[in-house]
Amino acid sequence: MRTIWWEEGLKMIDQTLLPEKLVILEVKTIRQLVEAIQSLRVRGAPALGAAGGYGVALAAQKSTFSDSENVIQEMEMAGEMIRQSRPTAINLAWGVDRVLRAASRCEDADEVRERALLEAEAIAEEDLAVNRAIGKNGARLLEDGDRVLTHCNAGRLACVGYGTALGVIRSAVAEGKDIQVYACETRPLHQGSRLTSWELSQDGIPVTLICDSVSGYLMRKGKIDKAIVGADRITSDAVFNKIGTYSHAVLARFHQVPFYVAAPLSTFDRVLQEADVTVEERDPDEVRRLGTVQLAPRDVEVYNPAFDATPLEYVSALITEKGIFRPPLMPPV
Amino acid sequence: MRTIWWEEGLKMIDQTLLPEKLVILEVKTIRQLVEAIQSLRVRGAPALGAAGGYGVALAAQKSTFSDSENVIQEMEMAGEMIRQSRPTAINLAWGVDRVLRAASRCEDADEVRERALLEAEAIAEEDLAVNRAIGKNGARLLEDGDRVLTHCNAGRLACVGYGTALGVIRSAVAEGKDIQVYACETRPLHQGSRLTSWELSQDGIPVTLICDSVSGYLMRKGKIDKAIVGADRITSDAVFNKIGTYSHAVLARFHQVPFYVAAPLSTFDRVLQEADVTVEERDPDEVRRLGTVQLAPRDVEVYNPAFDATPLEYVSALITEKGIFRPPLMPPV
Repeated sequence: MRTIWWEEGLKMIDQTLLPEKLVILEVKTIRQLVEAIQSLRVRGAPALGAAGGYGVALAAQKSTFSDSENVIQEMEMAGEMIRQSRPTAINLAWGVDRVLRAASRCEDADEVRERALLEAEAIAEEDLAVNRAIGKNGARLLEDGDRVLTHCNAGRLACVGYGTALGVIRSAVAEGKDIQVYACETRPLHQGSRLTSWELSQDGIPVTLICDSVSGYLMRKGKIDKAIVGADRITSDAVFNKIGTYSHAVLARFHQVPFYVAAPLSTFDRVLQEADVTVEERDPDEVRRLGTVQLAPRDVEVYNPAFDATPLEYVSALITEKGIFRPPLMPPV
Repeated sequence: MRTIWWEEGLKMIDQTLLPEKLVILEVKTIRQLVEAIQSLRVRGAPALGAAGGYGVALAAQKSTFSDSENVIQEMEMAGEMIRQSRPTAINLAWGVDRVLRAASRCEDADEVRERALLEAEAIAEEDLAVNRAIGKNGARLLEDGDRVLTHCNAGRLACVGYGTALGVIRSAVAEGKDIQVYACETRPLHQGSRLTSWELSQDGIPVTLICDSVSGYLMRKGKIDKAIVGADRITSDAVFNKIGTYSHAVLARFHQVPFYVAAPLSTFDRVLQEADVTVEERDPDEVRRLGTVQLAPRDVEVYNPAFDATPLEYVSALITEKGIFRPPLMPPV
């Protein structure tokens, strides 16, 4: 099963209900899509690329105009809403723009609708192919017996399928290597416990769940051979990824553990630098509450950034569909 | 209000119910005390010292024998149960042994009972005095305007009152210094969110709650001036404290942020070294579940150590009631 797909409408796994329930969400409006993105029902850079593309395609299907100009205008308005729903995630804008660009070449409203959906489907298919290529390239870096730390979920649930960081692990396992994964739970939203440990367990890949604060201690005890994470945006100077990535990267550097970032070329931002990127701050209640449990005083101040930035020089290698690049080497545009 | 005290029996704040409910627990049996210690209803090295002492005194009060030998034997059995309830916490054994030693000098059963309670009360009174001395000594290290990171709860709730790491902050604030605290939530049991942010808010000391994985990023952004934590055991080579302490210490070192440990002399272990100490591993469900929320697959493997060990050379200063010691300098026995 894919994470997001089109089947008589836009469908996706509602990731907020995992690991207890596997529920398929039917997305019928742009407003519903924006809510799904903001609530992290769909998340992960590559999956957001597909969500952006499918979202614009959805706007096209729903438009009742019969002239292409008005349909495209509605698609552009939808695209803007989608783009703004999670501004740090570059793939979202990338998927939106790609479908808009493809559709804008059409002259007839029905052709716009058809072209938009085809382009969104192409994004999804390419994502799968790209992830398999990332996996194959990255698997060269993993050795039989490696114990690999990962943070958040850069798995098939973060993509249309297969995964980036976890795709590398899947490929290594498929090659017959014995890999043990340490999955950081990833506070505050537990993508590591809810998603990574779920999808690895489903695939029969050995996984041990840890609190985020345990990674340094495991490295000190010599129990981590490699660390591998995904990315939400890679500028010329830094990797933006789930909050906590930076700490793991510094700890890895300190303990001489190779630190790898696996990401498709669509994650690379060739324009902005670290200082130009706004890091999204999320609702304090994500940290103050969990379910019905009040974890902290209701009015206590909270700093809850969604991402952090890791300087590229702390990254041992970038794993892409075009090969492995060791910073300061970067993949060609 | 103290954290643990004797008032027609042994009483304590049930810390598992904070911050939503302030409930006083009446401890009537040793079995109930062991449960309270293991469930972290009372926790924190100095508070456990008092709990150990009061526990042995409770055993003495409850003993129905009329000869001192049998009363003391019951106290020793109770002491052994209490000691084993959290083996990494040196203060627990220290409190137990101190009351046992004091009572063993008595010849008459009633005298044993009286002496045991007096000694337990003395531990509690001394803890308060010691914490105030630690606070006064440590406050010299904090400057007006400092933004201070802390982990777990080394506050008044970890002690009979006042606190060690938070006692230092309280003293600095009492001296008129403006201090802003960043409290790490401290997964998996949230002592930072539940206890530290609660007790600092109660005192009107500005506190911002963060996920444990945010500390490195804040340091990189130059937003942390000092870090200060408590300790569960300090050997000649390492500080044992809540899991996550080691990562913060390495991150502090990497970012040249002073890293302080505030602890009474009773926390110093003059016999064992890091390698000799068993680190308690706790229930996997602490990480897999929270309240009624299943955070991870029910059967996923979990590594859940309660503590980690930070090499002494990563500690900028040890703050004790006898003054400040910069490793390799250690307080005299």
